[in-house]
Amino acid sequence: MSANLATRFANNPLIRPEDVKPSIAGFEVVSIFNPGAFTFNGKIGLVVRVAERLVPTPGFLDSMSFLPTGEISVESFPTATPGLQTGDSREFTINGISHLTTISHFRLAWSDDGEHFIVDDHPLFSGEGEYETLGIEDARVTEIDSTYYLTYTAVSRNGYGVGMRSTTDWKNFTQHGIVIPPFNKDATLFPEKIAGSYYMLHRPTGSGLGGPYIWIAKSPDLLHWGENKCVAQSRLGKWDSARVGAGAAPIKTDSGWLVIYHGVEVLSEFSHRYSLGALLLNLDDPSKVIARSEDPIMEPEASYEIEGFFGNVVFSNGHVVQGDDLLLYYGAADSSCCGARLSLPEILASLKGV
Amino acid sequence: MSANLATRFANNPLIRPEDVKPSIAGFEVVSIFNPGAFTFNGKIGLVVRVAERLVPTPGFLDSMSFLPTGEISVESFPTATPGLQTGDSREFTINGISHLTTISHFRLAWSDDGEHFIVDDHPLFSGEGEYETLGIEDARVTEIDSTYYLTYTAVSRNGYGVGMRSTTDWKNFTQHGIVIPPFNKDATLFPEKIAGSYYMLHRPTGSGLGGPYIWIAKSPDLLHWGENKCVAQSRLGKWDSARVGAGAAPIKTDSGWLVIYHGVEVLSEFSHRYSLGALLLNLDDPSKVIARSEDPIMEPEASYEIEGFFGNVVFSNGHVVQGDDLLLYYGAADSSCCGARLSLPEILASLKGV
Repeated sequence: MSANLATRFANNPLIRPEDVKPSIAGFEVVSIFNPGAFTFNGKIGLVVRVAERLVPTPGFLDSMSFLPTGEISVESFPTATPGLQTGDSREFTINGISHLTTISHFRLAWSDDGEHFIVDDHPLFSGEGEYETLGIEDARVTEIDSTYYLTYTAVSRNGYGVGMRSTTDWKNFTQHGIVIPPFNKDATLFPEKIAGSYYMLHRPTGSGLGGPYIWIAKSPDLLHWGENKCVAQSRLGKWDSARVGAGAAPIKTDSGWLVIYHGVEVLSEFSHRYSLGALLLNLDDPSKVIARSEDPIMEPEASYEIEGFFGNVVFSNGHVVQGDDLLLYYGAADSSCCGARLSLPEILASLKGV
Repeated sequence: MSANLATRFANNPLIRPEDVKPSIAGFEVVSIFNPGAFTFNGKIGLVVRVAERLVPTPGFLDSMSFLPTGEISVESFPTATPGLQTGDSREFTINGISHLTTISHFRLAWSDDGEHFIVDDHPLFSGEGEYETLGIEDARVTEIDSTYYLTYTAVSRNGYGVGMRSTTDWKNFTQHGIVIPPFNKDATLFPEKIAGSYYMLHRPTGSGLGGPYIWIAKSPDLLHWGENKCVAQSRLGKWDSARVGAGAAPIKTDSGWLVIYHGVEVLSEFSHRYSLGALLLNLDDPSKVIARSEDPIMEPEASYEIEGFFGNVVFSNGHVVQGDDLLLYYGAADSSCCGARLSLPEILASLKGV
């Protein structure tokens, strides 16, 4: 049984691929999705992920990477290449080596009302340096003492890890490098120190012994992380059986830190279903789980969530709190940016103590 | 062509499974291997990994775990269990979930001459707490300012990550938790600060985008780690094509930090070959590689390296420097502890600039 608590915005999708210009000539925007969210100067801003590719040539698959110059190089493989396997729309493999079918950068979108957004024509930034050559993805934005920290997936042939940049003006950024090493993504900072330490949720990837679970780390300075603990595992037989990963910055409530997270269920080899649930963590020691969603608080139901570049996905890495309401921004079907309104008290009431 | 630089000790294996008592009645010692090494009070000490199992019952496979009480619980699976797969002597899987065939703890062994060791009858320590329930493995020992830091693989159903404990007297230990989160192993600390920071090599596990490569991290306090960079990838077509991982603490030489590392070549699905090579890192910035072994400096050749619990393995996570010589301690065939003498100038001369 689903406890769907989300009221979708009437004008969803808020931003679609056709609304934005590609960053360079000859490319097409495949998806604009998985927005991080923040407030700045009275506006709501989104850090949207723009996934692009060279306009395809029939019979070829392209693998793209950012060069040190900022340009994008393209390697084209005939679809008949020995060892080449397709199936997942997000990647193809050649003898076990993955090639992403798109390359992602970040762009800003601004809104006065939280529902109507205008997207910049140019990238906020693209992949820079040797740890972002295959793109940057899924930024979480956390404001700490008037500085905005972006934690995102930095992808390269070295693996994918957690990259971090910070800004105070949304124009100048400081690169902090790979704060959590591969293979890790879905990292989000808590918005304040707890008992003298900073905290971050992150999501190691792996299988066999353990799996893709949500972990928490502590830091004295936001740059160096340790004291890692596992916060939430995936759960066999449930909507979050295959993978879990935290969304945007945990929300401080009287009951505890509220974390929106995504859970993944495998429908078939190349078909996964991404839903959203919540965790409630102890205010003084956020490595301790107080309660968790038995059922999703939001599932892919709308047509723009069911069908798209990678269907059956609602994935949130951005939200803004307005009183008792949560303005939840999310990627739909790995294609577009959407929004929904949820009641924080309703989310809290829906959780089951653990 | 191999450049085998090792002179094996005449009395290898130095410690064999039959030399040590199991930690509890009804168990057998399968392997005593992969020793960390250090000097203390004029003696050479080894932190050896003791892998044990319940004496097997035909028709069953056992999966063991440390309980909070320190006892070991055993779960037995009939070999006909649906979804059960065997092949790798180190583990079996049931529907993709790994079960280790042994459970490891640490024991101390002491020597006056570096070649003859007496092993304690009792564990130094076993897995404790929720991140070591499936065992502790492959300790590297680094002495920093008269404190000994043990970095080891902490294995549990949460995944395997880098655990750390420290001691000054080899009797009382401080637990520092999981300093590098899953899926990670083969971590080793540098023995001193470099330009004001501590450094650690570690080895994320993963595939597809990136792979099991050697990374380096920086820390202000040995407990919190960041600024992660990739130091060495595996190399297609070479002896280190499948995986690489650092050995014991890097050795400071006039030319740079010398790192002994293992490289793995896959011979067939359940047969891998572990050899040893070296990296030379910049003295002032150890994320920069100066030179690397083209060929192994040591390969499995002796009968006790070719045959054993997991054959074709020389794996080193411990060494002691004596003048120009390196006393290299290593695990042979995942079965026994062995030793070899190598010349540091010969190792350095064998490396090829990168």
